This record gives sequence, structure tokens and C-alpha cells, in this order.
Amino acid sequence: MTMLNGDLLIGGQARRGRGGSFYGIEAATGQNLPVEFAGATVDDVKEASALAWKAFETYRETGLEERAHFLERIATEIEAIGDELIERAMAETGLPRGRLEGERGRTAGQLRLFAKEVREGKFQELRFDPANPERKPAPKPDLKLRNLGVGPVVVFGASNFPLAFSVAGGDTASALAAGCPVIVKAHSAHPGTSELVGRAVQKAVAESGLPVGTFAMLFDTGFEVGQALVADPRVQAVGFTGSRRGGLALMKTASERKQPIPVYAEMSSINPVLLFPNALAQRGEAIGKAFAGSLVLGAGQFCTNPGLIIALECSGLESFKSAAVAALKEAPAQTMLTGGIFKAYCSAVQKLESHSAVKQLVRGPDGADFQGAAALFETDAKSFLAHTELQEEVFGAAGLIVRCMSEAELSDVLDHIEGQLTIALHIDEADVPAAKALVPKLELLAGRLLINGFGTGVEVSPAMVHGGPFPATSDGRSTSVGTLAIYRFLRPVCYQDFPEALLPAPFKKA
Amino acid sequence: MTMLNGDLLIGGQARRGRGGSFYGIEAATGQNLPVEFAGATVDDVKEASALAWKAFETYRETGLEERAHFLERIATEIEAIGDELIERAMAETGLPRGRLEGERGRTAGQLRLFAKEVREGKFQELRFDPANPERKPAPKPDLKLRNLGVGPVVVFGASNFPLAFSVAGGDTASALAAGCPVIVKAHSAHPGTSELVGRAVQKAVAESGLPVGTFAMLFDTGFEVGQALVADPRVQAVGFTGSRRGGLALMKTASERKQPIPVYAEMSSINPVLLFPNALAQRGEAIGKAFAGSLVLGAGQFCTNPGLIIALECSGLESFKSAAVAALKEAPAQTMLTGGIFKAYCSAVQKLESHSAVKQLVRGPDGADFQGAAALFETDAKSFLAHTELQEEVFGAAGLIVRCMSEAELSDVLDHIEGQLTIALHIDEADVPAAKALVPKLELLAGRLLINGFGTGVEVSPAMVHGGPFPATSDGRSTSVGTLAIYRFLRPVCYQDFPEALLPAPFKKA
Repeated sequence: MTMLNGDLLIGGQARRGRGGSFYGIEAATGQNLPVEFAGATVDDVKEASALAWKAFETYRETGLEERAHFLERIATEIEAIGDELIERAMAETGLPRGRLEGERGRTAGQLRLFAKEVREGKFQELRFDPANPERKPAPKPDLKLRNLGVGPVVVFGASNFPLAFSVAGGDTASALAAGCPVIVKAHSAHPGTSELVGRAVQKAVAESGLPVGTFAMLFDTGFEVGQALVADPRVQAVGFTGSRRGGLALMKTASERKQPIPVYAEMSSINPVLLFPNALAQRGEAIGKAFAGSLVLGAGQFCTNPGLIIALECSGLESFKSAAVAALKEAPAQTMLTGGIFKAYCSAVQKLESHSAVKQLVRGPDGADFQGAAALFETDAKSFLAHTELQEEVFGAAGLIVRCMSEAELSDVLDHIEGQLTIALHIDEADVPAAKALVPKLELLAGRLLINGFGTGVEVSPAMVHGGPFPATSDGRSTSVGTLAIYRFLRPVCYQDFPEALLPAPFKKA
Repeated sequence: MTMLNGDLLIGGQARRGRGGSFYGIEAATGQNLPVEFAGATVDDVKEASALAWKAFETYRETGLEERAHFLERIATEIEAIGDELIERAMAETGLPRGRLEGERGRTAGQLRLFAKEVREGKFQELRFDPANPERKPAPKPDLKLRNLGVGPVVVFGASNFPLAFSVAGGDTASALAAGCPVIVKAHSAHPGTSELVGRAVQKAVAESGLPVGTFAMLFDTGFEVGQALVADPRVQAVGFTGSRRGGLALMKTASERKQPIPVYAEMSSINPVLLFPNALAQRGEAIGKAFAGSLVLGAGQFCTNPGLIIALECSGLESFKSAAVAALKEAPAQTMLTGGIFKAYCSAVQKLESHSAVKQLVRGPDGADFQGAAALFETDAKSFLAHTELQEEVFGAAGLIVRCMSEAELSDVLDHIEGQLTIALHIDEADVPAAKALVPKLELLAGRLLINGFGTGVEVSPAMVHGGPFPATSDGRSTSVGTLAIYRFLRPVCYQDFPEALLPAPFKKA
């Protein structure tokens, strides 16, 4: 534990925050973990953003190779922390070793993927549009275009991905790849994990000879620091993964600035799963079992957790239900990320249990303190449509089946579904015509459609879209996972009739 | 005048609006022109957006060739209107024949450029990311990605480009190219021009066999129709060119919707021109003359009009000023677009004339009613910094010179400049080092930087950026001119493990 002492990381240094102090909490016990952390103050915010603004001038013009190498160094430094990182993350989040080791691999892989993207340089969108002095009626000027980083980016660590969507996760990797300095507001649910990773990034900054303002990380026990970061005039964009309420609050602050800025908030999604009759008839049991597996994965604490099942009434649906119920009855309760998340989950499940229009099909075995038990409910389409609260995300391993009496009813349910990250369709050959008829509606509702699978397990790749119409995200024109994520933090600039001597470096190399 | 009768264009038909009636006004006289127009009601808005939503399902899946051909048909139909269009536009806007004929060419050229962009298909961003069933620890799914139109787009016609940024202008062309139906809120400053062009688009829709909801055009005398369009849940994006107040009002409405949507508003820019000492010493007179020409072009009613000159005190600056003053003294007053714009211009000029920190250098000869006379003012850096109102856009042929006593003062002025569409630098060889030192600051301030030219004359091309940091536009990550404009109206969708039979058409052809 030599590296960990609860400091803010700012200006290339680690120093004690002057805000309120707090502890990392062991998820499984609710007890304080070693090391007292101290939150930042509004002065720290000002200092971090001034340094980030200063760093931006140098950092945005780093060569592709230099920037790629920096991203790879971060990956290497995170791996070099070793088991201390995994153990701290296990303690703070309650997530099992295998999951966190996998997530560490994903985090490093993500940084290396963006390094590759940077080296390829396509994101720069270099365009050469030569002059034509002979053109009539007016000569054509010489135009060149490139994408430039938007400026300092604030990233909010997500509670449910303490590595892959936190301090050096997807938002940070894509913003750094775009040439933007990053200030992380660390999530207080895993401060030790955050500090360990933050120090690895800080080390990579120093080793790469980059300006100290390229990266900073601030703690806070409340909302003041996050709000001050989003309001700071030098901050130019925001990446956030979290609750709908949190995302909406940041969007409001960002839109009320003198200069409004984009907020990329990934907020809430119940990821509908559509079960088609022939698929159910052929393999209702297998789908039910697979669904249960996806529902309880990571204690259901995924943005892509399949919270809603929509199906036509049919005998296959009964097989699906029996298999899902059987699997969930045996599914061990799992430690949830924080006491607050556990409490919110219990209260949401209780609300469903006592809801007049909802029937509980199964509840998994109770576990220890802070362990969420899986739960499956069902309702009919009419009730679902009448009670909009049934569409609210339950963060955890709870699912709701909506039984539809007709295709018209099913279509009606889809017409009232909010924007989603994913929608899954389970089909057999014979279901293709019915599925085909729905795809045009579904592709307006979600950023990713998938066949015979579940949304959990988000591939980090060039064709991934982890984004979707509001309220799944604040900006359905973007993705927070995959290489396209870099475009969130770029803006085009045109250079007209620039002599060679004045041109920015990327044009000269190209 | 057989085609013109003041109707709304909706559902493939022309029909009388049930809102308030109004007339097109002859810009030069303030007199009513023939034909009484009738505004739309909120019911018309609902109908148009319902039709647009319905059309979206078909229109967004039109083949590339079909869509390109449709855009070309619009161009042909606009050209086919013939001289009636030019004459009506001349009467309504006071702009001269040559300018409007040029603008018609630009409008048709823009539509054909987007047709070419559609045919090339690159905007679809088709990505193929094949499965790897052997991958450990988990098999890799098959992922495909494409860009899809966001949905119905509302376009507000701009007063200052009655053809190129109005009913079938850049916003409409790029939205249609992206696969989005368009509802135009016609600008009441040129309703006849709007109706003629609108009918041409409507004809192209019919000839192309497209759904009637692909295009609609509504009139309004006030703000109700525009606000209702932006608030309508079926509308998914907005294109606007106009005042800062107007743009901010639309942004507010869009952000307060249950589902917020993007507004691409091009609002206000004073397009600073930086004059460097060596260039001034060598050719201060020539630059002064050229500046005067750019300032009075189109009566100064361009978004890229050079409203602000920033220069170090030097003898060359005196030559520049003398030449500009001499040219502007002779520059005939020109009819402005509307009586309202003329009045606002006069009042803004009067405010500058009576401003304690501002000196008037010249005022062009007065003209007839509704004709704006050019004006040039000067102030010093300290006063400019002390009076933020001096940074407000004056829409018309008025410019302000800011004299700086030192490079530090000049830098200070730049630090307090708001986001701009363009910044121009006038340099000679010997100014290159000084200019080079400023470029990193300037590229954060504007979407387009230009050397030894003026921002007026916006090339429609692949490398153009007509956009810039707030308040030049609402979204500095975008351009409203040039082929990149299409990306404003697209969102990515990912298709995971889709069987051939379910894949959208573009993947099959590719």
C-alpha cells in the first residue's frame, strides 16, 4: 500500500485535499478500508482547469506516435500496479477477482486500441482542397481541414466499472486520444482504486514528458466539485456514466454556462429483450436459462443489463419463464457495489413486489448484508402502458416480463419505450419476417440491436455503438465505447490559403 | 405569377393557412408586394411533423442513387422557375440581380454537391467487424455499423440568404442528404421566394415518388410556429441561421423537451481581421481598399462580414485607414433586407457614433429609405476591453478598428474575443513568426482561419468549416456549409450478429 494515501492528483503532484475527508468502504461489510481520503475544493478545481488549459496548447499538438505511446504507457503502468489494484478494487466494489482481472485487461486493451487509432491518424480528418486561381467567376482558395481536440475534458468515474469506465476508462482514453487534457472526478465508491490508477496515469504523463496539466484527479464527497468542474469556463466537454438524475443535473449546468458545452452522459437503459414465438417454441428453456445468466452477471450492475422482456403470450413463453425462474431460484445473492446501490435496489424490488399490476415470479435466495438477490416479475402490456414507473431502470439483477396478447399490443409497447442502449431479439428462421417488420422501429429506439444474444458484454471495437437515444444517453449521435468515441472530443478547423510556414504540423507530414 | 398564392406546403399539397395573414414587403420601398400569405397554426405543425415522421421510415431507406437523383431534381426544379424567382427575390430582399443569380447557382450547386456525397456513400460510415468464434475468453460477435438519419429536421430560413440558406439551402440539402425529412419554417422577409422554391421541392418530391411528408413549408408572422416545431416530439434536430437571441430561444426550447434534441444555430460573429505590421507597411492601402470592399458586400449582411479590425499602432495602419475611409466615403448606401434590419442597423450605428470611447472615421453617403450607409469606427484596446458592448455584432456594413499599443495588448484583446466563424490574418513574409505565435490561440476561437483574405465568400466544398465556438454557432463541432454538414443529421447504429435476411439494405450492397 505504499502508493496509496488519499491525495488529490494535480499539477503532476499528489497533495492533500482541503475538502471533507472520507474513507473507501468495503462493499461486503460496509466497514471503512485503510487510508483516509480528502476531497477537493473549488480552488483545486480552478487550479486543475487552469493547468489543463495550459497543457492543452502543447498536448493537442503532440505527434501521433508520441500520443499513442503515451496511451500505451498508461496501459503498462496500470498493469504494473499488479495485484494491489485488483485487491483494492475487489474490496471497494465487491466484484469478484475474475471480473476485475478481465476489466483490467479491457481497460489496458482499450488504451492500446486508441493508441492504434491515434497512430492511424484517420480521426484527424485531414482534408486537402486545393486552390484554383483560374476558376470563374471567382478564384477558388486553397482550403485545408483538420479535426482538433475540443479542449479540457472532465470525466466522471462510473461506479459500476471501477477500471474500464473510471479514471483511465473509455472516456479518458478517447479524450486523451483526441488531444484533450482530462480532469477526472473520481467516484467515491472506489477511491483507492481511483488513486492507484490515477497515479499510474500521472506517472505516464511524467515519463512521456507531457505538461503536468494533461491529467488531474479530484475527490469529492458530494456534488460541489463535479458541478464546479462542469461550470468552469476552461472545460470544453464532459463524459459521464451514471444515474439519470446525475446526468440531467450536469446537462443543466452545461447548458446554462455562458458558453454551453456538450455533455456525453450515459444514463439509464432497461435494454428490452424481444422474444419471438418460434424461437420460444424451439428453445424457450435455453433462452430462459441464458437470460437468467445475463441478468445476474455482475449482480445486474451493467448499463446493458436486460431489465425488460417483451413477448407474445405463447406456450414457449412458459418454458422460458420456468427455466429463468429455476435458474434465478438458485442464483446466489451477490455483493453490490455500494451500500447506497444495495439499498436502492432493495427498495425498487420491494416497490415491484407490492405493485398491484405486477406479479413476482421468483426471488433468488437471500444473501449476506449488502448482497442483492435476483428477482423476476411479470405484468401485461396494458398494465405496463398504464404505469410508466414500470419503465424505470432498476439497477441490479431484477427483470420484468411484459406479456402481450397481440402483435398490436406488442407494437404499442414498443411505441412507448424510451431510448435504449440495446435491444435484443431472440428469433428463429420462421420469426425473420416478424422481426424484419420491427427493425425499422427498433433502430430508432436503440444504438445497438442484437440477434439471439444479450447486451451484456460490450465489445470494444470499431463497429460498437454504446450510446442511444435519450435518456439512454444525452446525445444519441455518439458512442462511449469503441473507436468512434474519439469523435466526441473533436471539432473541425479550416485553414484557408495558409502558407506552408504557418500550417499546423499534421498537414506537413501528410 | 401563376405559382404563387401564399399557401402553406404540406402533405404534398398547397393549402391556405389558418393563422394570421401577411404580405411580402418590397425591401426598397416598404410597400406590400402582390399575394397575401397566411401563417400556419399549431395544428398544421402537428400535421406536418406527423407526416414527416411517417415519411422518415421510407425516406431514410431510399437507395443512394434515388436520393441523389431527388436532390438533383430539386436543383433542376429551382432552376426551372426561371426569372420569376430572381425578380421576386430582388423585390423582397433588395439584393441585386447578379448576387441573386449567383446565389441561385450556389444553391443548385450545393444540392448537386450533396447528391455526389450521397452517391459516394461515405457518410453511411459502413463498418464491418466480423465474428471470431474462436476468441478466448469469449467468442467475438459479428458487428456492423452504419449511420442513420436522426429523424425529421426543422430548418429555419435565413433572411440574408434567401436561396442558399433558406427553403432549399444548405441545412435542407444536408438534412435531406442524410435521409431526414425536412419541415421548413419560411422566413417572413421573403415569403414569395420561399413559396416558389418550396413548390419546386414539393414537385421534386412528387416526381421522385417519395412520401408526401418528406418536405413541408410553413409560414408564420411570429414565433409560435417555430417554437411549436422545435418542441414537437417527432422533430429530432434543428437547423437555424439568424440572430443570437433567436438561436438561444430555440436552444432553450430544445433543451427543455422531454427528449432534448440538437440545435445547429449559426448566430453571431464579428469575424476579426488581424493586420500585421509588415503587411501594413508594404500594402496598407491595398488591404484597406479590399477591406472596404468586403465590408460593404451585400450591404454587409453576411455572417462572415469583417466587423472588427485588430492592429498594432503603426504608420501602415494609417495608410490602411485612409484607403478604407476613402473607399467607404464613396460607397453607395444599399437597400437592406428588411425595414427591421435597416432600423436595427441605424440604431446600432448611432450607438457607436455617440459612444464615448469610439471615434467615427467615416460614414458613407446617405441613400434612399431603407438603404444602409457604410460606417467605420475606431477605438483603442483598453476601451474595447472595458466596453463589452463593442463586441456585439452590427448586422450591416459597419466596422470597428481596435488599435493596440503593444503585442501584449493585442493578445489581451484576443483573450476576450468570443467564438467566431472566421478570423483573417493579413501578413507578409516578415510577419510569419508573429502570426505563427498567434495561430494556436486563433484556432480555438474560430472555425476558419484565413490568410490575406476576408471571410466573405464561403466556398461550398469538402474542407469548408462554416461553424465555430459559441456564440458563433451553438455547436462548434459542426459546420453548416460544405459536405461535412451532413454529419449533423446522422447517428450511428450497431447491428450485432444480424443474419443476412435481417440486415438493412446498405450492408448487402456493400
